[in-house]
Amino acid sequence: MTTDSSHTVRRRGFLGAAAFTAGTALTSAGALAAPPASAAGRTAPAGARPRPRAGRRDRDASGDLARTMLLVGDRDEDLKLEYLRILIDRGLPRTTSPKKVLIVGAGIAGLAAATLLRDAGHRVTVIEANGNRVGGRIKTFRRVFQDKALHAEAGAMRMPDVHPLVLALSDKLGLERRLFYNADIAPGTRPTGDVPPVTYRAFTGETWTNGDPTEFRAPAAVRRTLIRVNGQQITRAQYAQNPAQINRSFGATDTTTMAAAVDRALADATVPADAPVNEQIEAWTDIISRFDDYSTHRFLVEHAGWDLSRIQAAGTLENMTSRLHYSLFPTLMDHSLINPGARYWEFKGGTQTLTDALAKPLADVIHMNRRMTRLVQTRSGVRIETTAESGTEDSCDGAPQAPRETFTGDYAIVTVPFSALRFCEFEPLLSYPKRRAVTELHYDSATKVLLEFKTRFWERGRDGFTGGGCVSDSANRFTYFPSHVEDSDGGVVLASYTWSDDAIRWDSLTEGERYHFALENMARMFGPRVYDEYTGTGATQSWVRARYALGEAVIFTPGQLHEHHAAARTVEGRVHFAGEHTSLKPAWIEGALESAVRTSLELHSRR
Amino acid sequence: MTTDSSHTVRRRGFLGAAAFTAGTALTSAGALAAPPASAAGRTAPAGARPRPRAGRRDRDASGDLARTMLLVGDRDEDLKLEYLRILIDRGLPRTTSPKKVLIVGAGIAGLAAATLLRDAGHRVTVIEANGNRVGGRIKTFRRVFQDKALHAEAGAMRMPDVHPLVLALSDKLGLERRLFYNADIAPGTRPTGDVPPVTYRAFTGETWTNGDPTEFRAPAAVRRTLIRVNGQQITRAQYAQNPAQINRSFGATDTTTMAAAVDRALADATVPADAPVNEQIEAWTDIISRFDDYSTHRFLVEHAGWDLSRIQAAGTLENMTSRLHYSLFPTLMDHSLINPGARYWEFKGGTQTLTDALAKPLADVIHMNRRMTRLVQTRSGVRIETTAESGTEDSCDGAPQAPRETFTGDYAIVTVPFSALRFCEFEPLLSYPKRRAVTELHYDSATKVLLEFKTRFWERGRDGFTGGGCVSDSANRFTYFPSHVEDSDGGVVLASYTWSDDAIRWDSLTEGERYHFALENMARMFGPRVYDEYTGTGATQSWVRARYALGEAVIFTPGQLHEHHAAARTVEGRVHFAGEHTSLKPAWIEGALESAVRTSLELHSRR
Repeated sequence: MTTDSSHTVRRRGFLGAAAFTAGTALTSAGALAAPPASAAGRTAPAGARPRPRAGRRDRDASGDLARTMLLVGDRDEDLKLEYLRILIDRGLPRTTSPKKVLIVGAGIAGLAAATLLRDAGHRVTVIEANGNRVGGRIKTFRRVFQDKALHAEAGAMRMPDVHPLVLALSDKLGLERRLFYNADIAPGTRPTGDVPPVTYRAFTGETWTNGDPTEFRAPAAVRRTLIRVNGQQITRAQYAQNPAQINRSFGATDTTTMAAAVDRALADATVPADAPVNEQIEAWTDIISRFDDYSTHRFLVEHAGWDLSRIQAAGTLENMTSRLHYSLFPTLMDHSLINPGARYWEFKGGTQTLTDALAKPLADVIHMNRRMTRLVQTRSGVRIETTAESGTEDSCDGAPQAPRETFTGDYAIVTVPFSALRFCEFEPLLSYPKRRAVTELHYDSATKVLLEFKTRFWERGRDGFTGGGCVSDSANRFTYFPSHVEDSDGGVVLASYTWSDDAIRWDSLTEGERYHFALENMARMFGPRVYDEYTGTGATQSWVRARYALGEAVIFTPGQLHEHHAAARTVEGRVHFAGEHTSLKPAWIEGALESAVRTSLELHSRR
Repeated sequence: MTTDSSHTVRRRGFLGAAAFTAGTALTSAGALAAPPASAAGRTAPAGARPRPRAGRRDRDASGDLARTMLLVGDRDEDLKLEYLRILIDRGLPRTTSPKKVLIVGAGIAGLAAATLLRDAGHRVTVIEANGNRVGGRIKTFRRVFQDKALHAEAGAMRMPDVHPLVLALSDKLGLERRLFYNADIAPGTRPTGDVPPVTYRAFTGETWTNGDPTEFRAPAAVRRTLIRVNGQQITRAQYAQNPAQINRSFGATDTTTMAAAVDRALADATVPADAPVNEQIEAWTDIISRFDDYSTHRFLVEHAGWDLSRIQAAGTLENMTSRLHYSLFPTLMDHSLINPGARYWEFKGGTQTLTDALAKPLADVIHMNRRMTRLVQTRSGVRIETTAESGTEDSCDGAPQAPRETFTGDYAIVTVPFSALRFCEFEPLLSYPKRRAVTELHYDSATKVLLEFKTRFWERGRDGFTGGGCVSDSANRFTYFPSHVEDSDGGVVLASYTWSDDAIRWDSLTEGERYHFALENMARMFGPRVYDEYTGTGATQSWVRARYALGEAVIFTPGQLHEHHAAARTVEGRVHFAGEHTSLKPAWIEGALESAVRTSLELHSRR
């Protein structure tokens, strides 16, 4: 596949330049200085524009967002390919003008940016609020279960094939990558062949890979995991064979699975990833322009013509209910990623091995237990004031405390969630569009309740399965089983994984209550044996109650893609912004890594 | 005003009967028994109906909702008038068939229903999860500040004139009612004349009152409270005089206040409360049918033609930003209530004096520290299993514990939030529509941060004011000052009152962090003197972290009014449902009281 030069790739509008290149073209920020009129535009740097007609967005802005989403660079280059070459192959070129860079936040974005910039000859300092660990929303529960050999994920747990940055980075760091079974397999079955390399086919026709092809074959999914809704319980295989019965329990008359119904409904807003990039840009520009003001609920009702019963059936079985009032775009983005057909990976030892591996060589420049409270920009540099805190990341006590430490540098990269920035002071004020993004971008709830069991009872017997997930209409909603367990007869089950309103219900409960109810709901599915099998130990993570994360991730509400995305990533004087919330893969490690390379490049190219 | 008999009041459809009358017409519940097909309808009891065209709802269902909202009874009676007569004047008629009624939840709805039913000769038992207090989301912080004379509200804090049930009930109970100054007054000024009686003018032309008119006059608002946005700070009076300057700081070109702009925008979806009831029903039917699928954001963009700058200006100044993605209806409902022109009341000693007064004579029938875990219905009665719990209502520890106590009765009224019902087991299952309402109804976040000050420094000097509230674009958003303080030089300021996404930001923080940041943001507005004035003691309430409330209140997302309201209030066999979430005044005490009288009537009329 090569780029057809007779079809010039559609040019970026004003947004691309501001979002991607930094440097001298940018003023030294200062919202008070910035004329408020510039705030009227839909996207950050533009002046006031005429309001597009209701329900449709400015096509230029939509086109810019489409290019940003597809990672089409200013010179029509494939930015993902560029990022792979920089992050994995060759780093940034050695700098001739070393800068002192303050990086706020030691999550994956901050750690990756720090690595790239230090390797290029810059002086980096990483400032992290948490006093106990790095990694941010990459967090593995380790040594908290009765069997110390067990671990489980509080945050990111599965990396899809289509996310080459994170997979190639983990390969480079020597982590052991293995399959995450989103759909269950028969116990005892194993993949055959060696783990395949990471391969990325750029829209320019070039291919990037980090190894030679292997004869790898994943075990077949058996779909013995359960669906329990409206008082009925069947396996996923049974549902696939006869979807009508379960569908009818919602009043829906569909004779196909709800996954298929969702596929059909979203077809009008889906673009094949292997189409020529020009076509993808045009198609996404249309979709973004037309549907950014749509919630998923509105799209299903008004565009797809769905009735309530189908919305509720698909909402329950395909995990859409709790996010129906959010923007259609997170649904579109996740639709292509979280489906039983996609292939996922995990790391032996847990996802946190990735951030641990990145942090190790940076140990001398990471300052823990320093929470940014104030960022001051002057003509010559950046000053960041911090506070040390008592308590833990989930603790219910502990106020910000003296003593404070102040860091100075030439530039800063701020990677912390905007939910946390809401409590930081900036001097001068951030620009108006950035302030609106900080205030308004919706951070969602996501809550996990993990239970440790003495044995992996779900793997036993004719109906046994390994990995995969069950779904129910109980408060648990989604229950995931471990894909791999070493050195233990037991296992940790993600008894309940919920988002948005489903998660908020759990967020109100104490730890003990969460274990209690999650176990009760598992008993409804697997019988009273779960009470005997439960070790009495669990772990739970409410991302909305995590005091350094302040939410799971950005999930746009209708209109926010146009209203805030461009502003989220623009440079403010000497301050650059990274993190999943500045990418168009929000909530994913891959998006955080894209943002890390982007901001490293922005900063590296300044003079 | 009398009902013009030549214009028959529009008849209720199928919904009214099911929603209001109970009795033998209702089957003894049992979702598994109910044919799943009945789940397809938009509202509970109906069979499948053809889906109305996109963006418009079934007009019959909308008409039923309009009547429900306007409290038009089955016989075209004014239900508010009926409710006043029952709750305040004469109670329910003495029963000839006493029933044993279990009432779950000792919030205002449960207490009022218990009072009515007991006074009518029924045997009531109230089951309350909280081991320490009754009142639910009516909660006054007392004796927690350094000056024990001070108190402040964690929950409901203001009762508008248009809510006669709560005002008349407090009068009946002998509480001292006084003005709550939503807009600030000059310090030292006082109302003249006696507190006026509560007066309700029914749409039938009748008038209900609990006393003789008085010559009451409220002090004039002076509007010295502050607006601080985009780095500018002025008083509300200055803003009223010259709105353009502040509006421009958002890029908005409006020359009127944003309150006026909102009034104009919502005019198409507002019905004068003094119009003939037939016209109100027709008009609301139109509005509900047409706009239930609209979020506030969508309405402002697509119907009112607002641009982003105006949305952000009004959103900030009129507290709409964080709820833009929710249904238009909560906005419409609150628009008429929370505005500077409305008159509000509070109770001396705090709002909790109301629930305390109701609970006192019920002390022998209220069982505290009993959380419902399971409700079983048989042909002859209801059995409720409960658990006793350790910990406090906000505690971070404590799992449900044995011993359990079981209560039996003929009928039950369940008043607890659906967010809490999500963790209760029902046997047989609740009907499909009720289960969907329990799962899907959106409960919002609301968070308060209260700070105690040694003196009421804001009342001093030429710019001093009493009561009222400031607004800012800082994380604090809205800051309210006490309307009355007795026996203290100090005062407790509601430094930050936030909803939805604005509140979620605070929900992630610890208590200590909340006080710290709330004080810092007050210092930006009032200068460093706040640090000297702060006593070091605060109180804070996150309703989403409250383990018995699990959220502030129901705030519909788009479509939920049609999709869930009818089902929220329908009777399930022997179980009736009350609480603000079953009313069309969600989040208000008045709605909870309406539901209490409604369910008491439902139950009382069963045979």
